[in-house]
Amino acid sequence: MICHKHKVQYYETDKMGITHHSNYIRWMEEARTSFFEVIGYPYDEFEKLGAFSPVVSLSCDYRDTTTYCDEIETDVEIIAYNGLRMKVSYIMTKATDGKLVFRATSDHCFIKKEGGIVRVNRTYPELHEKLLSMIKTEE
Amino acid sequence: MICHKHKVQYYETDKMGITHHSNYIRWMEEARTSFFEVIGYPYDEFEKLGAFSPVVSLSCDYRDTTTYCDEIETDVEIIAYNGLRMKVSYIMTKATDGKLVFRATSDHCFIKKEGGIVRVNRTYPELHEKLLSMIKTEE
Amino acid sequence: MICHKHKVQYYETDKMGITHHSNYIRWMEEARTSFFEVIGYPYDEFEKLGAFSPVVSLSCDYRDTTTYCDEIETDVEIIAYNGLRMKVSYIMTKATDGKLVFRATSDHCFIKKEGGIVRVNRTYPELHEKLLSMIKTEE
Amino acid sequence: MICHKHKVQYYETDKMGITHHSNYIRWMEEARTSFFEVIGYPYDEFEKLGAFSPVVSLSCDYRDTTTYCDEIETDVEIIAYNGLRMKVSYIMTKATDGKLVFRATSDHCFIKKEGGIVRVNRTYPELHEKLLSMIKTEE
Repeated sequence: MICHKHKVQYYETDKMGITHHSNYIRWMEEARTSFFEVIGYPYDEFEKLGAFSPVVSLSCDYRDTTTYCDEIETDVEIIAYNGLRMKVSYIMTKATDGKLVFRATSDHCFIKKEGGIVRVNRTYPELHEKLLSMIKTEE
Repeated sequence: MICHKHKVQYYETDKMGITHHSNYIRWMEEARTSFFEVIGYPYDEFEKLGAFSPVVSLSCDYRDTTTYCDEIETDVEIIAYNGLRMKVSYIMTKATDGKLVFRATSDHCFIKKEGGIVRVNRTYPELHEKLLSMIKTEE
Repeated sequence: MICHKHKVQYYETDKMGITHHSNYIRWMEEARTSFFEVIGYPYDEFEKLGAFSPVVSLSCDYRDTTTYCDEIETDVEIIAYNGLRMKVSYIMTKATDGKLVFRATSDHCFIKKEGGIVRVNRTYPELHEKLLSMIKTEE
Repeated sequence: MICHKHKVQYYETDKMGITHHSNYIRWMEEARTSFFEVIGYPYDEFEKLGAFSPVVSLSCDYRDTTTYCDEIETDVEIIAYNGLRMKVSYIMTKATDGKLVFRATSDHCFIKKEGGIVRVNRTYPELHEKLLSMIKTEE
């Protein structure tokens, strides 16, 4: 489990006085960037190899509001991965009180720049082993 | 069913050369704005009455990519509403060929500016009747 | 002179209750997209030829606030162009009352995808003549 | 002089493969947030007192491109302040090589939530003295 921190910026708030809900989707991406960096496979390096891992679906629950200057902690975990698809889980809490603010999952595939599916087990066997080893086993 | 149009802007693309996935969440909101305007209850007027209808959850499928200058058409429909909660459906297609690019639903509650739940049927009975009448009946 | 319209979206507001100032920079880009489309040289086509026209500097005055659902009209004009550099002017007004809300200029160069300057007069002589003919002569 | 750090996110890039130019305007705001926090007057606290300091104008030079995962360091300084107006300077460099990527200034006024000018020297005399003491004297 990797924890990513983000401080809510003014430009991320809306006229309701709270963080606009679209920004949590962006913080999920930020947290994935941190995750891949921490496990030793920075996503920018992955793209330089000619591969992408786009979002194919996502599902989100907004549990509490946040606003300007709040510190958000995101716990990121891989909850499913089979060499072709990956499911990532995100739990966001407020740093000050640990209160849950947001839960989500995103599904990803792996594709080549020129188009076509990447079979991670064949093309990037080390990354494949790493991702397999990172799958969270339910307690 | 209300149809909202959006032309993809340069600032909505990312380094993959396509629309960044977070923008579809913003276009869902744009489409809701159009929806409430068309049915005669503009959302900015609703907020001036001291009420909000925030997103409490959402679920999205990315079906095809779009990019700069693509015209996106969003079909918006209310698929559930009970006076306390509302579920909205969005189907986005490319204007040029009608190809499906995105499907999603969002769930909303109704709250007062000062906090507390709004019972739409009691506080805004006309809007309540309108929303009930807009619920899409499955063919 | 080309006029581009934009309706302020909820996600463009901030906790001050008004449009966040960074969005006007994005609307300048939107207005440039409309400008190049109207004069017959859509910017996405220009990029497909392997050329870009990035912003090298900009200067902006915020004259009045706008908010959710306001309609903004942007008058775009080329005020200088010499085959290597282009200066564009933007005047944004509220559609309802014509009140000035924002004035700005942006400076652009022309570069190749692979790097290196594009001499528009040699590489795209028709676009060069068009841009020269569009330069606003002061009244 | 206060230094703020920002790591470029994927959602901040555009189809040119670089950071979209509008994001630097947002990072100026991020850097101001850090600045006011470091000098002991967090901007969110300032707003809770019923005052705002909106941007009234800005001027920017884009000197080099940045992209996903680049670390940007912003040096922030107050270069003019008179109790009614404040001018802030920003110099952004790449953390890896110290290369200049962006220079800008922004002008700010001080207003009350209810409207009307805030005379900082009268209403917030301590902040006034602090800001005066922070004005950068040219070497």
